[in-house]
Amino acid sequence: MQPFFAKRFAQVEPSFIREILKVAMNPDVISFAGGLPNPAFFPHQELAQASASVLADTSNGALQYAASEGFAPLREFIAKRYWQQYGMTVSPDNILITNGSQQALDLLGKVLVDEGDKLIIEEPGYLGAIQALSVYQPIFQGVALKEEGLDLPALDSLLAEPDHAKLLYGVTNFQNPTGLSYSLENRQGVAERLIKNNVLMIEDNPYGELRFEGEHLPPIAKLAPENVVLLGSFSKVVAPSFRLGWMLMPDWLCQKVIIAKQASDLHTNGFVQQVLYSYLQAHDLDEHIEKIRTVYGRQKIAMEQALLKYCPSIEFTRPEGGMFLWLKLPAHIDAMALFDHAISEGMAFVPGQPFYIRPDILNTARLSYAGADEATIVEGIKRLGKVLQQLV
Amino acid sequence: MQPFFAKRFAQVEPSFIREILKVAMNPDVISFAGGLPNPAFFPHQELAQASASVLADTSNGALQYAASEGFAPLREFIAKRYWQQYGMTVSPDNILITNGSQQALDLLGKVLVDEGDKLIIEEPGYLGAIQALSVYQPIFQGVALKEEGLDLPALDSLLAEPDHAKLLYGVTNFQNPTGLSYSLENRQGVAERLIKNNVLMIEDNPYGELRFEGEHLPPIAKLAPENVVLLGSFSKVVAPSFRLGWMLMPDWLCQKVIIAKQASDLHTNGFVQQVLYSYLQAHDLDEHIEKIRTVYGRQKIAMEQALLKYCPSIEFTRPEGGMFLWLKLPAHIDAMALFDHAISEGMAFVPGQPFYIRPDILNTARLSYAGADEATIVEGIKRLGKVLQQLV
Repeated sequence: MQPFFAKRFAQVEPSFIREILKVAMNPDVISFAGGLPNPAFFPHQELAQASASVLADTSNGALQYAASEGFAPLREFIAKRYWQQYGMTVSPDNILITNGSQQALDLLGKVLVDEGDKLIIEEPGYLGAIQALSVYQPIFQGVALKEEGLDLPALDSLLAEPDHAKLLYGVTNFQNPTGLSYSLENRQGVAERLIKNNVLMIEDNPYGELRFEGEHLPPIAKLAPENVVLLGSFSKVVAPSFRLGWMLMPDWLCQKVIIAKQASDLHTNGFVQQVLYSYLQAHDLDEHIEKIRTVYGRQKIAMEQALLKYCPSIEFTRPEGGMFLWLKLPAHIDAMALFDHAISEGMAFVPGQPFYIRPDILNTARLSYAGADEATIVEGIKRLGKVLQQLV
Repeated sequence: MQPFFAKRFAQVEPSFIREILKVAMNPDVISFAGGLPNPAFFPHQELAQASASVLADTSNGALQYAASEGFAPLREFIAKRYWQQYGMTVSPDNILITNGSQQALDLLGKVLVDEGDKLIIEEPGYLGAIQALSVYQPIFQGVALKEEGLDLPALDSLLAEPDHAKLLYGVTNFQNPTGLSYSLENRQGVAERLIKNNVLMIEDNPYGELRFEGEHLPPIAKLAPENVVLLGSFSKVVAPSFRLGWMLMPDWLCQKVIIAKQASDLHTNGFVQQVLYSYLQAHDLDEHIEKIRTVYGRQKIAMEQALLKYCPSIEFTRPEGGMFLWLKLPAHIDAMALFDHAISEGMAFVPGQPFYIRPDILNTARLSYAGADEATIVEGIKRLGKVLQQLV
């Protein structure tokens, strides 16, 4: 038959990172390209116990259709944790369990974004968010992400436009792709602007638990609760395949977002919600996270030191947590070209250009230190140094 | 802050059935309202074995991020089953694993439906499809579903419109809500019209395996493979909470739908895909389904006989499989009013009006016989008979 597509999908192409990751999957390549958590920390045995215990009880409804909102005890666990970590008073009623926090982006696009709406996003920004929200055809406006957080004067000038954006998307802790975090002052500055300008922020926080230096900072959702949807995820601290994320929403959003969830897939996998909850009851999540933090922290230091030693011409961010480091290459180097050379030397990263709205920044790159041990990290960065020397 | 919503969500309200189901959850009420499979057939022990076996292997990637397309061996299993059941030659490449078949509807809406597009749907039609597709703001056009399938002359007259619908949605086996199925001749008639008019059909088949009388009929997807997306689900034959469905698509649709899936939630839960596959390897699915069929078949007969005995004024469909029976009440009876009386007598069903595009058919109702044993079915129908007598 004659193919046809909706206008919103007529131009859509496969994601660039997907193609990069395919190339980087060659086992001879040391890849810092992926965004995968280190599988050494997946609690196989503990989740096996939890699965057995959930399935041994035939009256818990773990295999039946379930509520669109999610498993109530899991929502309560999340609400309590916000109180314990940040002193935030959160009702479980305002928490919706999603298929990973990626689905939260889709639901918010569905409920909030009309074609042509302006939407402010960090630059560089998280590709998954750009992809999810693009479906709803907003006009993206970039605001630079700097050492201390969002560029507030740049944000002000966008909010001074007569028909300014009503939505702002940002990753406040250890951002993907840069590893940067918003300072406390910056969070306060953003919160004030949200309230003053009637803007809703999607505050994405998949990495916040993985802080290996410094103090936890309050989410902007604590500072401006009516103006923020806070996204969280178990993907980086327990297991990504479970696809368990959540959104904490202000009251005014709850009903429509739950309807959107129901229309999208009825509800999130009920069995794994109960398995995860059983795991969280039987084990101390903080102890588990501490192990991940310690190792990621060591790996980050190994990468920083190797970069200083083997790639002295590169500037890079110094993340206090998370999984990613961001490189600024010498101005004349196109990271795309560098990628091709790096692959032939057995090393991979993600070129930075696709993370920008503006197309002219070519000399940046994202590296993940989460998946490789320290010796492998040193060897990979050594290879990068070799390629750079050839190009300089 | 001042709430705002996208136009597509400004008017959306909670689903009517959701409210009905809440009322029907009172334990004193015998409810035929829900669409839940009978939990007696959930293979708790077998899935516990499968979970243990999947989690005992730390190298199978069951807890890591996974492919958007789904777990390859599960896609192969599904493709082979189409060959075994219907002699259909299907490539696993054309199968995408979704979060239940509900998500397939959302993905197809995303990729195919522009605001104002015409979309033909059975009348009465499946509410979940109406809800999922409504998000993309089509103009629904109803075609009556009759004893032998779609009303072909009515379909022809819609397809004769100059700018006719490009999409048709239907449930070809044991439809929700009516329990009706398309005859072989009707399937052939629909297939011809799809091809001739360049129309794509979404052929939803969640109940096809649950046939307790007669012969399996080929899906329309076999008769017009380029013009049909065939949806399937493990919800009714293994466990709904797993949220594992799939779509079988023609080549021309695959790439864009997979991109839509990736944008929506990256991928379907990888752990339960491996658990289900392990279960399917260790056990005979057909043997398991046979148990469900036998019991549902008996329960259906109990409901038919009780209706004949206690509700002689009601006409009803005689499904050859699935979970639902459809009632036509005496013309003067409003099923909404009947519902209120029935609840107070301790019996519940779903009034039929919301399943129609046109608003004037008030005297229909959906009953599920899947969840109650024969004695409970007889008692529930007796209560319905009592209420009807009071009203007549």
